[in-house]
Amino acid sequence: MNNKKQLTETELNERHAFKMLKKKEARDKIIATKLIEKGLIIINTGKGKGKTTAGFGIVFRAIGNGMRVGIVQFVKGKWETGERLALDKFKEQVEFHTMGEGFTWETQDRERDILAAEKAWKKSKELINDTTNNVVLLDELNIVLRYNYIPIGDVLETLKNKPKDKHVIITGRNAKEELIEIADLVTSMEIIKHPFRSGVKAQKGIEF
Amino acid sequence: MNNKKQLTETELNERHAFKMLKKKEARDKIIATKLIEKGLIIINTGKGKGKTTAGFGIVFRAIGNGMRVGIVQFVKGKWETGERLALDKFKEQVEFHTMGEGFTWETQDRERDILAAEKAWKKSKELINDTTNNVVLLDELNIVLRYNYIPIGDVLETLKNKPKDKHVIITGRNAKEELIEIADLVTSMEIIKHPFRSGVKAQKGIEF
Repeated sequence: MNNKKQLTETELNERHAFKMLKKKEARDKIIATKLIEKGLIIINTGKGKGKTTAGFGIVFRAIGNGMRVGIVQFVKGKWETGERLALDKFKEQVEFHTMGEGFTWETQDRERDILAAEKAWKKSKELINDTTNNVVLLDELNIVLRYNYIPIGDVLETLKNKPKDKHVIITGRNAKEELIEIADLVTSMEIIKHPFRSGVKAQKGIEF
Repeated sequence: MNNKKQLTETELNERHAFKMLKKKEARDKIIATKLIEKGLIIINTGKGKGKTTAGFGIVFRAIGNGMRVGIVQFVKGKWETGERLALDKFKEQVEFHTMGEGFTWETQDRERDILAAEKAWKKSKELINDTTNNVVLLDELNIVLRYNYIPIGDVLETLKNKPKDKHVIITGRNAKEELIEIADLVTSMEIIKHPFRSGVKAQKGIEF
């Protein structure tokens, strides 16, 4: 190794350390100003993958941290998912309700869908106001709201008056503007590339 | 209830059933053409939340379906996450390696970061080529690639020659173009709204 190369590496390392120190200082400063502790309203929306999956990821993180979780699935009633099987290991921490009858294009029955949505929302309200759990996941609530199967006004009211420390996660594409407005953390999952477009099947164990 | 109202509801229901039937037919037709079964290369990128969380969500889904999973965390070495604690319940199905030393702005030591990245990548290659697992999660690999701490060529080569059925999930912002090119499913998590912007702290149990 010649001197020039060695000097360059050393310089690189020094420059990096300085840059990272500045970054850390800036970050620590930001974190120091963030003092509000409260339960968050989290929305995962957009056309891409990962909305429900990230919601379940938060659930598993919360469980790992000893929290209690309530879950309502609004439109995936017929699907026996891997998440469900994995959650079975934490029965004492998780209350799981699958209320939907499957996607609406499977049922083709609007009346039954509305009844199922109303029942699911009633259970959701109970879980949100139940102070024995810390996190509530309302999976695919956005889809039910989009079809106007339950009144958005009641949803907004319930979320605004939720127990202060309660975290609520809402998933599904086409999140309503009014809902985004009262949420703390909103992420849109965007499709960059999808295997369906190149003839690849949905893969069991991975995608459902 | 007057007749007009009832008629409208009935009409609505009929129209809905017809629309959903058409939707289902179109969807079933698409699914019928998707015949390729193979292990997917999945990338979660973008500046928003949920990249790692959705990755862990896939891991829990796979575990629930009886699969075996290998995990390498590239840059979160110091964080004792809830995911880690939840995964402890599935020790016989999960091989977990935390190789990073924490975010680079915490360590401020480029040389040590490079050594940690190289070690983590070596372990990743072993896990990818190990035919006893089904899914490998390389958490924050994109960040390490962005800093050029490990050679992208070796990563591409390893992924192109991976066991056919192996699913590999890669997370981290700024995914490299070459990586996106060989991936099957790429999602970008975009920030719509973030609590940091309104003075809210990162919430333990939920965000880390």
